[in-house]
Amino acid sequence: MNILGCGSALPTTRRMATSQIVDLRDKLYMIDCGEGTQVQMRRMRVRFGRLSHIFISHLHGDHCFGLPGLLSTLGMLGRNGELVIHGPKELENYLRPILDIFCQKLPYSVRLNPIDPNVHSLVMEDHSLKVYSIPLRHRIPCCGYLFAEKPKEPHIIREMTDFYNVPVRMMKELKMGADFITPEGEVIPNARLTRPADPPKRYAYCSDTAYYPAIIPIIEGADLLYHEATFAESDAARAKETYHSTARQAATIAKEAKVKRLAIGHYSARYEDVGFLKEEADAIFPQTILASEGMTLRP
Amino acid sequence: MNILGCGSALPTTRRMATSQIVDLRDKLYMIDCGEGTQVQMRRMRVRFGRLSHIFISHLHGDHCFGLPGLLSTLGMLGRNGELVIHGPKELENYLRPILDIFCQKLPYSVRLNPIDPNVHSLVMEDHSLKVYSIPLRHRIPCCGYLFAEKPKEPHIIREMTDFYNVPVRMMKELKMGADFITPEGEVIPNARLTRPADPPKRYAYCSDTAYYPAIIPIIEGADLLYHEATFAESDAARAKETYHSTARQAATIAKEAKVKRLAIGHYSARYEDVGFLKEEADAIFPQTILASEGMTLRP
Repeated sequence: MNILGCGSALPTTRRMATSQIVDLRDKLYMIDCGEGTQVQMRRMRVRFGRLSHIFISHLHGDHCFGLPGLLSTLGMLGRNGELVIHGPKELENYLRPILDIFCQKLPYSVRLNPIDPNVHSLVMEDHSLKVYSIPLRHRIPCCGYLFAEKPKEPHIIREMTDFYNVPVRMMKELKMGADFITPEGEVIPNARLTRPADPPKRYAYCSDTAYYPAIIPIIEGADLLYHEATFAESDAARAKETYHSTARQAATIAKEAKVKRLAIGHYSARYEDVGFLKEEADAIFPQTILASEGMTLRP
Repeated sequence: MNILGCGSALPTTRRMATSQIVDLRDKLYMIDCGEGTQVQMRRMRVRFGRLSHIFISHLHGDHCFGLPGLLSTLGMLGRNGELVIHGPKELENYLRPILDIFCQKLPYSVRLNPIDPNVHSLVMEDHSLKVYSIPLRHRIPCCGYLFAEKPKEPHIIREMTDFYNVPVRMMKELKMGADFITPEGEVIPNARLTRPADPPKRYAYCSDTAYYPAIIPIIEGADLLYHEATFAESDAARAKETYHSTARQAATIAKEAKVKRLAIGHYSARYEDVGFLKEEADAIFPQTILASEGMTLRP
């Protein structure tokens, strides 16, 4: 997972507006697309052509003002595969006029998939991934996204299948869990012929949101949680007022949900240095990661 | 005049999308506003609060996709004075939905001034400046802008007015050109009491456009001309096809219009180094300036 930007509403020269790329097997999935995202993609050498889906959390500019530029650029680069943008239904009112005015000759189609950010549901499924919405609590309808990798097939232990002369046509069945029966009738248990794949990973993206424990059952046990931490504890009143979280609140969610790791971001522009946000989070959930532009995290 | 960005449609990590700031007396006037403009303003320490008018040349994304972010940010910074955006009438279709969706609580008002880019006319006038449209020739309706400073008042020569005991109430009349008559009836000619102000400056911005000599009478004698030079002469066919100019064409316009200086920009993303564009322009109009991000030019 690549962090393209993890600033908040007010732009600074230190922080880019929010955008992330989930890189899984042969595809890229983008989450949010703040202004300047396409230039960050260039800077981080992200391959534009591999982008397949974009997930928008909510209609605040720092999470979606980079879409028009990115959509135009994909057209100039000659994309032809469909691009699907998932997000609150208001996305249609925002993007339709822009597509009509600026993108009349786009060589690919843009499909908008309107979702209800207030409901936890399956948003997208492909051969390697299921993506679910995570209802959040912000000033306007807003949801996070849970990326749940599908189980991978077990690995064939080549030395063993060679030893037992397993025919090639049987490999698919082995991957499905079948035992192998030799011509002599001997049963070779599947476990001797295959090695389990790495367990599938789960990544939860939660921004922007007030402290909202209702998300805990959805993200429970995730390998990686990105949770916004706009404010320090000393600005907790401001966090409450603006429906954002403090670093300590983000860490509390991580602890209660028993996730393996927590990355925080969406820092307020008022903080030059965000090291103390990590300290505040660490006190509750040790080894919190401070997200920053250009960082790659592996769930 | 500050160059915030002088790249063309395809974004790169070297070049920002088009935007410039004209800084005159107490106000800032922006021309075009590509994606990322607000961050460039921060980088160049441009004072957001002094911005009074924005002029948009045409509805291509690399000239206006930075507007939504900038308008939102001005709101967050607590602006309250009206902001006027001048540009082709389609600007309304682009910005109105964005203002409705993202800027419902803006503490200031945005006024759109629709202009006809096909007609050379006065677009805006304030106490220090007149701005005229310059019809250009591009794939869609597009115009440049001519910034014509108004004549400044002459300077009072304090030593002389003291010598003749000119009363303070007379100063305004002296600035208007009046002579001073002493109580004894002696006529002191205005020229002995005042020193003429610097002559007013004229700056012409012409982007995007094919080679279009019809603009010459409008920009004739300008102190500074910014003219797009997207392509090198070797790509002249591509320039014609896309309604852009080559560096040599920009220089030809500068020469024919007898402007004092030429700055070129809007370089195609295909050129890593643009030094040879300067060479091609110099051959026609010596001492052409290669515009670049962060550059300040004084007409």
